[in-house]
Amino acid sequence: MSISPENEHPQKVVGWAARDASGVLSPLNFSRRANGEEDVTIKIVYCGICHSDLHAIKNEWGNTIYPIVPGHEIAGIITEVGSNVKEFKVGDKAGVGCMVGACHNCEACEQSLENLCPKVIFTYNSIYYDGTKTYGGYSDKIVLDKRYVVRIPENLPLDATAPLLCAGVTVYSPMKHYGLTEPGKHLGIVGLGGLGHVAIKFAKAFGLKVTVISTSPKKEKEATEILGADKFLVSRNPEQMQAAMCTMDYILDTVSAEHALVPLLSLLKSNGKLIVVGLPEKPFLLPAFPLIAGRKVIGGSIIGGMKETQDMINFASKHNITADIELVKMDYVNTAMERLAKGDVRYRFVIDVANSLSAKY
Amino acid sequence: MSISPENEHPQKVVGWAARDASGVLSPLNFSRRANGEEDVTIKIVYCGICHSDLHAIKNEWGNTIYPIVPGHEIAGIITEVGSNVKEFKVGDKAGVGCMVGACHNCEACEQSLENLCPKVIFTYNSIYYDGTKTYGGYSDKIVLDKRYVVRIPENLPLDATAPLLCAGVTVYSPMKHYGLTEPGKHLGIVGLGGLGHVAIKFAKAFGLKVTVISTSPKKEKEATEILGADKFLVSRNPEQMQAAMCTMDYILDTVSAEHALVPLLSLLKSNGKLIVVGLPEKPFLLPAFPLIAGRKVIGGSIIGGMKETQDMINFASKHNITADIELVKMDYVNTAMERLAKGDVRYRFVIDVANSLSAKY
Repeated sequence: MSISPENEHPQKVVGWAARDASGVLSPLNFSRRANGEEDVTIKIVYCGICHSDLHAIKNEWGNTIYPIVPGHEIAGIITEVGSNVKEFKVGDKAGVGCMVGACHNCEACEQSLENLCPKVIFTYNSIYYDGTKTYGGYSDKIVLDKRYVVRIPENLPLDATAPLLCAGVTVYSPMKHYGLTEPGKHLGIVGLGGLGHVAIKFAKAFGLKVTVISTSPKKEKEATEILGADKFLVSRNPEQMQAAMCTMDYILDTVSAEHALVPLLSLLKSNGKLIVVGLPEKPFLLPAFPLIAGRKVIGGSIIGGMKETQDMINFASKHNITADIELVKMDYVNTAMERLAKGDVRYRFVIDVANSLSAKY
Repeated sequence: MSISPENEHPQKVVGWAARDASGVLSPLNFSRRANGEEDVTIKIVYCGICHSDLHAIKNEWGNTIYPIVPGHEIAGIITEVGSNVKEFKVGDKAGVGCMVGACHNCEACEQSLENLCPKVIFTYNSIYYDGTKTYGGYSDKIVLDKRYVVRIPENLPLDATAPLLCAGVTVYSPMKHYGLTEPGKHLGIVGLGGLGHVAIKFAKAFGLKVTVISTSPKKEKEATEILGADKFLVSRNPEQMQAAMCTMDYILDTVSAEHALVPLLSLLKSNGKLIVVGLPEKPFLLPAFPLIAGRKVIGGSIIGGMKETQDMINFASKHNITADIELVKMDYVNTAMERLAKGDVRYRFVIDVANSLSAKY
């Protein structure tokens, strides 16, 4: 760990990194390992800006190792494959999500739930098998084990597909796992941001009736007229909430800000499921009665495994689902972070990496 | 409602009732309806004392209408059946649990989940279809709709079977519904009381590995040597809790006293399920992280539907499962309530009704 990021590996890379908890990003020269037998090298063309990136660069989860190059919504073109890689070839469109390694030995890994592996290695701010640190997609290329490469079908545009690698699978995985997919059933989606807006699209593709639940009445028009939600419910409006009691089969809660669960539970029918994918700092208050009286369930979910991620991309390809994005250059990234902190984006920033960094190929 | 309980119906009944929030029980003459075409009359031989009875007689849930005759763990002998009752005959052993009516029209009722029907009528302290109040099993007979009568197979003794009608189905129903039944899987049972001790027996019959989780180290010997649990975990022992982290597939939490969920969630493997059937007064604190990181689930459950209740009794019959009881006379019931409030019972009081009240047949 005493070798500089620039000199520990042979492949030279340019990225943008935060050096301290200010979270301000600036260019960093670092390096990546030589492409091994099982590896794939990807020229990064686009990278989405996830809210996790913002938490990480400011060390809000307390585990950041600086310098940190964030980015785990990566889309690009394969430029090199190892001798044991038959699944991909140079020129293929490919994506990378939140993970680049796991133990491949445990119960979770055996089910391709690498996201639940206790030894999962994240795309950035993790320690790789070789002891070096992982760096994310705000950079011009990445080298990774083929098991963590996602095939992006031809019909999907790379820029608007990038956010699916994290935001997309984060909502798709619980919908599949918890069975929130039965056509005609009623799904409430709490929060209309990067996750919520993609969740609407998947839910409509599954044939669900979708109600967006939001604190902001001003989002109604976009939710219903542009994104395709069937209804819009203002969570701060007691009459609307009362009228919607016991009408929903499932709720997907994407909100990371502090909020109450009980009003959401009351929207569920008996046997309803409330699935939490946001990560508020403070604990929820959960009285037993509303859970017990209607035999309701609260479940959690975090990103998704590699098989699920590929399934999600294939499903998106079949149904032409991508994120609604605002494309920005790398030198706008600090401004983008400020806007993201205020929720001022519809609905995902994507960095135009290839046109922002001087490529080295 | 202005007619006295003694005169509103033709069949005269003797029971023990609480008249106010002191909860002290004393004899009450009241009445039950004539046995209708769809009805069954049962001579009550035994009635279990459930913790709910204690809450109700003291009006601890704020909804008690006095006088209240508690009791919803009823076992007895059928003495009369209506002209449309082909399912039962005079002399049959029969039980009654927590419910005597529901709407029979809603989504829940269609699935025989009468316990989840918004119009469910409880065995006591509810208002029946005819506008009169329901009275429970601390009495010498009961008249009820055949749909709420449970057949008790010959091999099951009436006294030790009575508690299954509430305590039994309260733990059996969630085990079946949430799939806590896969042989070889590891179930944690929190709390070793009326519910918990029956849960051990069902769990062992399903072929599970069972760990009892309790605050009381002194219960270990009974849990493992007499009731058949495989292990015993003292929840106040940090070393034991640490060593048991991520080892359980499911947890059934039967405790109604205030307690923390997070240590229980940490005992679960990824994809584990924590099912709550107790009803603590204060809300649980539920941080999102432990739920999300292992894709864990918290579910609730309340008693069970009529089909499930009969299934449970049939399963108990097949596996010779009954409750461990202390049989008491009716005039001991106030003492029994005091002891129950202190948890001083192994594991369920059952009132020897037929030998305590002067029968009127």
